[in-house]
Amino acid sequence: MHNITNFVVMNLTANALLALGASPVMAHAEEEVEEMVGLARALVINIGTLSRPWVHSMIEAERAAWDRRIPIVLDPVGAGATRFRTETAHRLMNEVPPTIVRGNASEIRALCNADHVTKGVDSVHGPEEALEAARALAERYRCVVSISGATDLIVDGEGVIRIRNGHPMMPRVTGLGCTATALTGAFAAVNPAPLRAAAHAMAVMGIAGELATVECHGPGTFQVRFLDALYLLRESDIQDRLRMEPE
Amino acid sequence: MHNITNFVVMNLTANALLALGASPVMAHAEEEVEEMVGLARALVINIGTLSRPWVHSMIEAERAAWDRRIPIVLDPVGAGATRFRTETAHRLMNEVPPTIVRGNASEIRALCNADHVTKGVDSVHGPEEALEAARALAERYRCVVSISGATDLIVDGEGVIRIRNGHPMMPRVTGLGCTATALTGAFAAVNPAPLRAAAHAMAVMGIAGELATVECHGPGTFQVRFLDALYLLRESDIQDRLRMEPE
Amino acid sequence: MHNITNFVVMNLTANALLALGASPVMAHAEEEVEEMVGLARALVINIGTLSRPWVHSMIEAERAAWDRRIPIVLDPVGAGATRFRTETAHRLMNEVPPTIVRGNASEIRALCNADHVTKGVDSVHGPEEALEAARALAERYRCVVSISGATDLIVDGEGVIRIRNGHPMMPRVTGLGCTATALTGAFAAVNPAPLRAAAHAMAVMGIAGELATVECHGPGTFQVRFLDALYLLRESDIQDRLRMEPE
Repeated sequence: MHNITNFVVMNLTANALLALGASPVMAHAEEEVEEMVGLARALVINIGTLSRPWVHSMIEAERAAWDRRIPIVLDPVGAGATRFRTETAHRLMNEVPPTIVRGNASEIRALCNADHVTKGVDSVHGPEEALEAARALAERYRCVVSISGATDLIVDGEGVIRIRNGHPMMPRVTGLGCTATALTGAFAAVNPAPLRAAAHAMAVMGIAGELATVECHGPGTFQVRFLDALYLLRESDIQDRLRMEPE
Repeated sequence: MHNITNFVVMNLTANALLALGASPVMAHAEEEVEEMVGLARALVINIGTLSRPWVHSMIEAERAAWDRRIPIVLDPVGAGATRFRTETAHRLMNEVPPTIVRGNASEIRALCNADHVTKGVDSVHGPEEALEAARALAERYRCVVSISGATDLIVDGEGVIRIRNGHPMMPRVTGLGCTATALTGAFAAVNPAPLRAAAHAMAVMGIAGELATVECHGPGTFQVRFLDALYLLRESDIQDRLRMEPE
Repeated sequence: MHNITNFVVMNLTANALLALGASPVMAHAEEEVEEMVGLARALVINIGTLSRPWVHSMIEAERAAWDRRIPIVLDPVGAGATRFRTETAHRLMNEVPPTIVRGNASEIRALCNADHVTKGVDSVHGPEEALEAARALAERYRCVVSISGATDLIVDGEGVIRIRNGHPMMPRVTGLGCTATALTGAFAAVNPAPLRAAAHAMAVMGIAGELATVECHGPGTFQVRFLDALYLLRESDIQDRLRMEPE
């Protein structure tokens, strides 16, 4: 699975993918990105720490993914916070529409309406406040939109899935949103139905977050136990704990 | 809080700020750095993994912070080790004098005297050996200078605060100096008195380091418990443990 | 010790070196790389997240290391996966032959035979399948080749050392291969015999991996305990656990 992601979260994201049994690659040079995508079963693009040369590589990667018909998952980190981010996110959406967009509520609102402004990379809205924007994006780009929050919303042109798993410690660990995006890519690589792939990824994130609270004292131990939980996760954990509607 | 920091410590730094309840943003592109600083209440600049385009963004960010009158905290990582670092640190000092400079003793000596050379990014001097240099810098730039070590010194034009908290495991974890700088930024964002802000940040670092030794076996568990300790820190921990002079 | 390594593993690598008592520096700018190498006792180059400007700095660093006669350790991450990687790895080999090449079996095969292609950054071959390639490289470049795997092979023009330490959890943590490379550099900095230095580094990696399984639930706790184990490692642990042939 190929990832072009941000410096802050690369290590956690790669570890989460390995814990789950996926095989992550992270490379960003224009010289090789097309070939690397040629070896992958999904492409994940995350604009967390953006710069001009990386945008070129992201677009190259999108085109290579399109040529090979592999799913593209886009995380528009901080869209709405600066013009450069909002414009880059729109450009990536318009160049090759992604299979799944995964963001927080403020980012999804900013993607839908270019005039919308946010305060940074953390959401100032709840997921339900972004539902209309998500529906509009899903129709406009024929993609799935996955909004993370206390309740996650996964939206396509027809319906909404709500997932009520997770734990309040999760926003206190940096990069768990980006990890949700990477896991969405891993599920999309093996599931041809993007709505289900996105929902399964958010369910696994939330359930691993619930299991990570064993012997957890704060965000340090939580992050460590979260990786353990992803590795140890069994089908029965999901059956016992899943809080998904409709299901 | 806006951070332009180095690749090695980005994850730990962001987690420490989140554990404390701050809201970190890390972005470095010239295209957006001014706008990002426009959303922040403090700017932290760390030259740990330097390159030419990042220097331009750092200077842009400083100017934006100056325009908005928000505090600037500078960590001159490795000043004295190479000409590029020493010159960049001086340039950042002279372009817009920072509110607080936070470094180790060797870096502070190199900032004061351009001819001073050090051996890398670890200090070869004790904090007291940098006291005169810190006083000279504090007067020349009208800033606060915060020197980390077994005893931390926080210096302004008038006096010195000494903080004797901390633990010998701290230098065995990469990026705790950079984390001290980031926390200094977080305290400066909410405290208009830079001497007090810098002292509180070093006290919180040291006390969290002492609390992190519970069930600590080595630098791996220490780092994890340090993030937990920042999250769990209570006013009473600070009152019970603070070893600050004068106070 | 100077490292030019990849974004994904910088933090873990620096922590492993600190845990062991080494003093890591990571800097990549062309403007300072020569001076930084001038302060170091070994140079480690890792091409995990490659780009054009970094290649220039890597070559500058190699030349500075050659001038100062300090050992060079090269990790050709992902050689064989893209032309850019394979060509860069060859260029780094030919510009200044490294003292030690440390890679997985697929990378070593790709280094030996430019037509060889692999699937990403994870090996699709066992170490024994790369033995002939390693011997050819060792003769052609008069270097030591260290291949990590369930059994590690360390090869020079004359013989082979096999190390059977380690634990199956190790490939589930990102960056442990890169950490092996960094440790190889730390041992080469103090041991003038590169075959022994490379073997000792792999033995320490494997034994720390075995010790890390105490109270280990998954790859999250494993990584934390691995750093603790490096820090706590005693001569007697090595004597009791070493599985090296011939010895």
